[in-house]
Amino acid sequence: MEATALRLGIHELIGDYVERIDEDRLEEWPDLFADPCRYLVISRAGHEAGMRQGVMYAASRGMLLDRVFSLRRANIYEPHRYRHVIGPIRLKSIEGSMAIVQSHFLCVRIMHDGTTSMFASGRYLDRIDISATPFRFTERLVVLDSDKIDTLLAIPL
Amino acid sequence: MEATALRLGIHELIGDYVERIDEDRLEEWPDLFADPCRYLVISRAGHEAGMRQGVMYAASRGMLLDRVFSLRRANIYEPHRYRHVIGPIRLKSIEGSMAIVQSHFLCVRIMHDGTTSMFASGRYLDRIDISATPFRFTERLVVLDSDKIDTLLAIPL
Amino acid sequence: MEATALRLGIHELIGDYVERIDEDRLEEWPDLFADPCRYLVISRAGHEAGMRQGVMYAASRGMLLDRVFSLRRANIYEPHRYRHVIGPIRLKSIEGSMAIVQSHFLCVRIMHDGTTSMFASGRYLDRIDISATPFRFTERLVVLDSDKIDTLLAIPL
Repeated sequence: MEATALRLGIHELIGDYVERIDEDRLEEWPDLFADPCRYLVISRAGHEAGMRQGVMYAASRGMLLDRVFSLRRANIYEPHRYRHVIGPIRLKSIEGSMAIVQSHFLCVRIMHDGTTSMFASGRYLDRIDISATPFRFTERLVVLDSDKIDTLLAIPL
Repeated sequence: MEATALRLGIHELIGDYVERIDEDRLEEWPDLFADPCRYLVISRAGHEAGMRQGVMYAASRGMLLDRVFSLRRANIYEPHRYRHVIGPIRLKSIEGSMAIVQSHFLCVRIMHDGTTSMFASGRYLDRIDISATPFRFTERLVVLDSDKIDTLLAIPL
Repeated sequence: MEATALRLGIHELIGDYVERIDEDRLEEWPDLFADPCRYLVISRAGHEAGMRQGVMYAASRGMLLDRVFSLRRANIYEPHRYRHVIGPIRLKSIEGSMAIVQSHFLCVRIMHDGTTSMFASGRYLDRIDISATPFRFTERLVVLDSDKIDTLLAIPL
């Protein structure tokens, strides 16, 4: 694949991901993953310790969708939204049909009353299937900079 | 137009926009719009309800410039600056000589005493005239995530 | 050099810079500079007043590395990390083998207990040597939006 098209496809996938979450189109979010896949939200400390379980985990589109359904049914948390910005997106290597990609994010949380606060920061460590377009995440590790976030996390990051 | 040049021109316009605002070169800010144009800052709730008026509105370069002149004359607010970062910029479609583009932003506000705080987050929904270079905004909707921001807004976002 | 490769190389350098800092690979950070070089962290007010000294200053890789060694030895500050996101990266001009580049950043600080707060915002004003790959910073001015930051600054920005 031509280098510009490759980078563009990666940017599109990562952009689409945050748009579907931030615009509350959560039911469309699992479609950005391959099936099976690996989605893991984990703290930096947990990631560095080699832990394989984190704050959120899914191994298939079905599991991702289950999480969305739980969210929609649950009324236990105060309604809120996220807004992500993504820092430098870096293509680290290509392994066969897989692109190894890293990026940074900041995410603010907007509560129903309009209160906006810094919510989370961290890294996306991605394995992206580039064998067909549009590209899909085979693996997305969301490595959180802070350990404090866990109990607040409802919407995927 | 060649795809890379198109994307580059869009990135340049969006980058130039935040630079002129954040560097307090507000008098040069209206030049980034076509004339007539549509500039609207509106809350997400207002936007989703189809409201056509928001927190700020202008339909021409003259109106945009009027706003800057008012700002320069007014001494009613404490001096401050913004700093924007722009998340993924997404080219959604091309309609004739118009590019339909969306992007995310976070904006912090820096008060004269140096206090920095998260000020605003949201989306830019743009219609960009690509018939001549440099590109210009025909329409820029600034859709704010929070309703709380209104009364604080002096400098354009 | 071909335009796309040029921009890609600049993005890579800027991305690599924040990754080495944010991932605490500080010993590898000086390698991104030419030698001699100029690295200066300065407030906007200081920069606009034409001051040549700021909050941090280095004129060579050796001086940059000295700063890292001091940091590693010092136990006077509470452990923390940064997370940067970079806004629009703008190539302003090419002067011989030097690219003049500006970008925006937001940087949050994550304390050891997980507390995350907006730490710094500002601009990177870069002179980047593009005569060989990978590109290197000949000059990087970090112009801070706030004057308040000085006494807190330990890790380079």
